[in-house]
Amino acid sequence: MQYLFPQSLANLINQLVKLPGIGPKSAQRLAFHLLRAKDADAEGLAHAILQARNKVRRCSVCGNLSDEEVCAVCADKSRDERLLCVVEEARDVISLERMRGFSGYYHVLHGAISPMDGVGPERLAIEPLIQRLKEGRVREVVMATNPNVEGETTSLYLARLIKPLGIRVTRIAHGVPVGGDLEYADEATLALAFSGRKEI
Amino acid sequence: MQYLFPQSLANLINQLVKLPGIGPKSAQRLAFHLLRAKDADAEGLAHAILQARNKVRRCSVCGNLSDEEVCAVCADKSRDERLLCVVEEARDVISLERMRGFSGYYHVLHGAISPMDGVGPERLAIEPLIQRLKEGRVREVVMATNPNVEGETTSLYLARLIKPLGIRVTRIAHGVPVGGDLEYADEATLALAFSGRKEI
Repeated sequence: MQYLFPQSLANLINQLVKLPGIGPKSAQRLAFHLLRAKDADAEGLAHAILQARNKVRRCSVCGNLSDEEVCAVCADKSRDERLLCVVEEARDVISLERMRGFSGYYHVLHGAISPMDGVGPERLAIEPLIQRLKEGRVREVVMATNPNVEGETTSLYLARLIKPLGIRVTRIAHGVPVGGDLEYADEATLALAFSGRKEI
Repeated sequence: MQYLFPQSLANLINQLVKLPGIGPKSAQRLAFHLLRAKDADAEGLAHAILQARNKVRRCSVCGNLSDEEVCAVCADKSRDERLLCVVEEARDVISLERMRGFSGYYHVLHGAISPMDGVGPERLAIEPLIQRLKEGRVREVVMATNPNVEGETTSLYLARLIKPLGIRVTRIAHGVPVGGDLEYADEATLALAFSGRKEI
């Protein structure tokens, strides 16, 4: 029943509906909001989309998102170059940085090995990772791929490639999430939480 | 902790967070989506925002949103010119049109009288409404302002202005919503539903 929206408004609603988590009602509400919003907010959003797509690229060192040739993490020389954390996606870097506990550098694979989806190792940024490691400064590679089949497969695959270089390979711990409820933890997580138990 | 997002991505997230109903987590998810989306979708959204703001204006007859000088409803000459429905906002026209039951034309006030917010009758599109009515074709004005204090005040104010022109003024019925549960209907709605009861 959108025949009554002016064409340009209908078009805006159709574009908004394509966004993840935005249904027809939300799209309509957002569209009306954008029509009424101040220039700085509405045009600001439009230009922010165009500019982000124009400027954001992959860091030439680690593959993290960056406006520059080298991302802010790689450009920070005060970090511990002996530690390298391997993640699947750039957004994982943000999540880990929020934790504030890691002082090393990152390497973004841009995916995980998934034979089901036809993603083999050659599709991931593994070659540049090995090149970085061959420079000889990294002592430990921390695998922070996702705790699922694809992430585990990728971790094991990389571990086999990296260990021969004489570099330690570790995996972030699995267990029950802090603040979570044991009742809701799945069996696999509980089993890993048990096998990874520590003296208190 | 957004210092790690590239500036242009952080800016995009900040713009998205200004949208109603979009929190920081959703904004981040939308931003990553927009970075990865196809050109047609991401640039398409940006251009749709700019174009809608550029093209959408108020219909010179009724105040509804339109890409043209006159909106699609007013341009439709097959409607019943004896009926005019008065609403507060352009989005109310869409809601009423979805019902498919109304065959007349609309008039958008662009607000409701609200002394608390400093909105007096002079801030609403009342003068053009009276001009339209003085043309003499309208026999009945249906008040479809919102069922709250401001909407009721506006309805009563307009009724006093319009009745002397010899035009019938009606108000859409209040009652329990279809599919609603009596248990959840508030007292005022129930009282109106009772007083508006009909023979079955």
